[in-house]
Amino acid sequence: MKKLIFIFSLLVSFSGFCDKPGEVIQVKKTAAITEDATPYVLKKILENKEAKGIKFEKGTYHFYPDKGLTKFVYISNHKDVFVNLAFPIDGFKDFTIDGQGSTFIFHGKMIPFLVDNSENVSIKNVTIDWAMAFHSEGEIIAHNTEEHSFDVRFGDEYPYEIRNGDIYFIKEYYEHDLGQTIIYDKQRRAIAYNDKKFSPIATSQKSTVQHGIDQVKYKYKVDKSDLTLRKVGTESRLNLKQVAPGVVRFYNHKKQLPPIGTILSTKGQQGENRVAPGIRVNNTNNFHLTDVTIHHAGGMGLLVENSEDIYIDRLKITPSGDRMVSTTADATHFVGCRGFIKMTNSLLENQLDDCVNIHGAYQEVVEQLGEKKLGIRMGHHQQEGYVIGKKGDTIGFVKIDESFTPFDKLTIESIERVNQRYQVITFKEKIPKEVVQGDYIENISAYPEVLLENNKFQGNRARGVLLSTPKKAIVRNNYFHSEMEAIFLPVESSKWYESGATSNLLIEGNTFDNCNFGGTSRGIIRLVTDEDNESIAFNDITIRKNIFKMFDNLVLEASNTDELKFEENTILSSDRFPQLYPENPAFILRSSKNVTFKNNDFQGKATKMMESDKSTINVDFQ
Amino acid sequence: MKKLIFIFSLLVSFSGFCDKPGEVIQVKKTAAITEDATPYVLKKILENKEAKGIKFEKGTYHFYPDKGLTKFVYISNHKDVFVNLAFPIDGFKDFTIDGQGSTFIFHGKMIPFLVDNSENVSIKNVTIDWAMAFHSEGEIIAHNTEEHSFDVRFGDEYPYEIRNGDIYFIKEYYEHDLGQTIIYDKQRRAIAYNDKKFSPIATSQKSTVQHGIDQVKYKYKVDKSDLTLRKVGTESRLNLKQVAPGVVRFYNHKKQLPPIGTILSTKGQQGENRVAPGIRVNNTNNFHLTDVTIHHAGGMGLLVENSEDIYIDRLKITPSGDRMVSTTADATHFVGCRGFIKMTNSLLENQLDDCVNIHGAYQEVVEQLGEKKLGIRMGHHQQEGYVIGKKGDTIGFVKIDESFTPFDKLTIESIERVNQRYQVITFKEKIPKEVVQGDYIENISAYPEVLLENNKFQGNRARGVLLSTPKKAIVRNNYFHSEMEAIFLPVESSKWYESGATSNLLIEGNTFDNCNFGGTSRGIIRLVTDEDNESIAFNDITIRKNIFKMFDNLVLEASNTDELKFEENTILSSDRFPQLYPENPAFILRSSKNVTFKNNDFQGKATKMMESDKSTINVDFQ
Repeated sequence: MKKLIFIFSLLVSFSGFCDKPGEVIQVKKTAAITEDATPYVLKKILENKEAKGIKFEKGTYHFYPDKGLTKFVYISNHKDVFVNLAFPIDGFKDFTIDGQGSTFIFHGKMIPFLVDNSENVSIKNVTIDWAMAFHSEGEIIAHNTEEHSFDVRFGDEYPYEIRNGDIYFIKEYYEHDLGQTIIYDKQRRAIAYNDKKFSPIATSQKSTVQHGIDQVKYKYKVDKSDLTLRKVGTESRLNLKQVAPGVVRFYNHKKQLPPIGTILSTKGQQGENRVAPGIRVNNTNNFHLTDVTIHHAGGMGLLVENSEDIYIDRLKITPSGDRMVSTTADATHFVGCRGFIKMTNSLLENQLDDCVNIHGAYQEVVEQLGEKKLGIRMGHHQQEGYVIGKKGDTIGFVKIDESFTPFDKLTIESIERVNQRYQVITFKEKIPKEVVQGDYIENISAYPEVLLENNKFQGNRARGVLLSTPKKAIVRNNYFHSEMEAIFLPVESSKWYESGATSNLLIEGNTFDNCNFGGTSRGIIRLVTDEDNESIAFNDITIRKNIFKMFDNLVLEASNTDELKFEENTILSSDRFPQLYPENPAFILRSSKNVTFKNNDFQGKATKMMESDKSTINVDFQ
Repeated sequence: MKKLIFIFSLLVSFSGFCDKPGEVIQVKKTAAITEDATPYVLKKILENKEAKGIKFEKGTYHFYPDKGLTKFVYISNHKDVFVNLAFPIDGFKDFTIDGQGSTFIFHGKMIPFLVDNSENVSIKNVTIDWAMAFHSEGEIIAHNTEEHSFDVRFGDEYPYEIRNGDIYFIKEYYEHDLGQTIIYDKQRRAIAYNDKKFSPIATSQKSTVQHGIDQVKYKYKVDKSDLTLRKVGTESRLNLKQVAPGVVRFYNHKKQLPPIGTILSTKGQQGENRVAPGIRVNNTNNFHLTDVTIHHAGGMGLLVENSEDIYIDRLKITPSGDRMVSTTADATHFVGCRGFIKMTNSLLENQLDDCVNIHGAYQEVVEQLGEKKLGIRMGHHQQEGYVIGKKGDTIGFVKIDESFTPFDKLTIESIERVNQRYQVITFKEKIPKEVVQGDYIENISAYPEVLLENNKFQGNRARGVLLSTPKKAIVRNNYFHSEMEAIFLPVESSKWYESGATSNLLIEGNTFDNCNFGGTSRGIIRLVTDEDNESIAFNDITIRKNIFKMFDNLVLEASNTDELKFEENTILSSDRFPQLYPENPAFILRSSKNVTFKNNDFQGKATKMMESDKSTINVDFQ
């Protein structure tokens, strides 16, 4: 006879706090709640849509997916996933989640906070972590130089299994294989110096046997990088063996052996490995994040889409315990936001992608379906389901291989999402005949003003700040120590369909501390587009009163830029790392005009100051 | 400059047929429509919810997913998937889809007809097929006996790639690896005789290296067969090589080499390979299927859930062209249906699973959440999202290891689906204290009366008819030629959580033509439960006036049965196939009582007529 284990204790909890509209839900740290807070919190959230907030007695709360609310979510730059939620903040107004210093530990594929269609939502005083990470880490403990193999020790917190030469790390409700890898320096708690020499580990190779595959025809354009189609033509090249319990030998490595004592981070296949971001905000006005720490997420720390007025103060993205890695993708990421994005006094470190990325989204014209109606297509599989704007927004039409400036603008009347790739937009005006298949559209209304001030960006893979907005932006008094460029102004049109040509940007008073240490030959600040044309993408960029500590030469790379001022900056030579590219100049200009360099204090190593192409004109270098 | 290719022709089509409520949408076979009918049909369906039907000018229409309506669907006994739809029949009343003899060719992951929440819907005069099948077929052309390998030739319609020793068949928007296999006899166009000797091909083996995996703990019960967890502990054992273009050598085969000239069918991994059933009906009353042919589906042909009164006449499930395989799972399947299921004059052949399966669903008690409230859990990952009933239904509570008969019954007040595995049911009455964690619940109200008459069931993998309903059922004048048992009455509680103990069944006037030729030692008619107990599962079963053509001995296996009559049947000896189990008796009885055999004409081979255990009592064998 089985045991009676009915949860009457929960019943007591459930009935103990009947909340009235306008009041704040109080959560006590009873064992019944802290051991799995999901069902209690979920019930409270769903039953009290009029509440003004939820407050937790300070403590550690676990959240399991088993009794969480299922929601399917299209998430930009993530895998579109089903997640089980404890906090489905959908349609809330003036609502505050206050952890009062609590720690929330999540288990498996959950999104800690999912905020949709809301107004004036705050999250504060809470720390987010996962019991088991979505990535894994191991220490390089030996080289076997004759056979060019190396040994990695994985600790008890990273259980694994080897299947047919690949390694699979087993988590709660999740697993990942080797996939994307990078090397961390344990002492510096940052990506290893010149890491590009050692990683990533090549996991796949061309498959050699195919038969008749060119007979698979598609009527419409397909995305060859989509999760099914990308597999065609490749196979695994991994050959891993366990040489002692917890110690795995990596054969067949194409690059230099990673230094002994460094840490290998692995997170599984690109496209499959972003399944549980920390906080996701969508279609929400006035979102505040204050005194929040995110130790980990299986994806980005904070992802905001199609929202307005975002205020972030004292956010920490930083690993817990001995982990090298915090979040497995960008610390923060903003798509199609408007109004204001303000981030201050924050520390974003050690995550596996950029610190801040702010941009719009291009979509592609497929066909005209009426005088005012267009069929459009999402270009990238991680943009699936993304809706480009709302009624009244101004859509710009761009011929991306000719110019980044819209050749025409129309107003959205309505958008119908037919499927994850295909939508139909009805405009208020007639569609001009210049619009043809393959043109890009961008939402001119959906770009934000930006202030990033007094933040620290360090230790992560990839860039510091990526900015793509034509609105006013200020990057002031921040500290950067990034393995790639510190500030990158891109137009990532070709691969990522990320829109936004930046103008009116002030970069002032920042310290760039030996960035680009990962091994790429790039400027600390870099303005570069994906496209080959010479048209202007960036306009009115001022870089002044910054300090550049430089172990290498290249300070600034700018292309397709008009009105660039580089003034009163101090460039110092540093011996923090050995120099990598002594032949580089300090500044590279391409297809740019009206550039001024003045009153800079240059103490750098570069012997050649400036390199520019013949399409660059009117440079005043003092 | 890119080409202007706007679809003004479509505009004309779109505006040509404005339909009034109550009228029938007419679809003409213009090139703009037939080349991809999806956007046109979808628009018509969505804009004419009051229409009484849609009629197609006779022709061949292609349906692509690219512009189809995305819908996520939980599908019983399938992978839960996103599909793109042309026919989202949701909330329709008195609606008829009439192909007027047309053929609809689908491309990729679509469900041709998805019917939800509707009343009185008919589909008629239409043939469904896919351009590229979700399975693949190849002919065995050589044996290499020394190394125990065999060679398979795959035709041009099955493009493939070999990756790391496994074969991947590349389709439109889809691929599958070897996975589940079976052998067909090309001449007989059916599963090969004694196929169990040759297939399936073993694709996986135990992985040998694990480290620390027992440290991954779960707070709640988990389903080890779920798509993530099942991977732990296994790896591929395949070692396939192309020996000539289109010819692949299979090494490492554990069974006998499949005969030269037979056809290997492969469809990818179990759990992953059912993504596009032909017709799916859910929560609908009065559904009619008349003169419909389904040549193929990536899953079941027709799947009906939680619906009432289903009428099927002249349905054909049969492969097109040279294909051996029709649908890649059951021809027809009914879960939680009520009212009447009537299937007449139909041909169900060559699909990769049962012809007809009618059952309910068990779910498991997790915890009590209030006097009238239970948390319950779906047992099987392919039952995820299934809702067991609606307000007013009677739920029976079963202690499955003791008895199949409910020990108590309650009435549903409401059901809340929290996530795909966990739901909360509120009852009208208080929950009795006998209910404990681990008890099963079944919906007593959701069983149908059944009539299967004048149908032909042949050539498929697995069983003919599976019946699990306590309501009146008649199986009359059908022809069976199935490789496993022709009629199976199960209680598949342990693995599949399929409920329903059958009573009041008449099996009359059928011809059982040499069934069980696939190699299993089973009765042509078989009444067997998953559980080890001796309680009665089946009651009032009459088998009379049937003809059994028998190449082997075993006619009937019955366990846990009360009131079984086997009368006026003719058992003939056949030399259609060599005998497999000469030691078997003709009849096996276990844990049964009140069994009558009389007036049968036995001309079979069996030398031993009857085998029964000591818990079987009151058998009258004349």
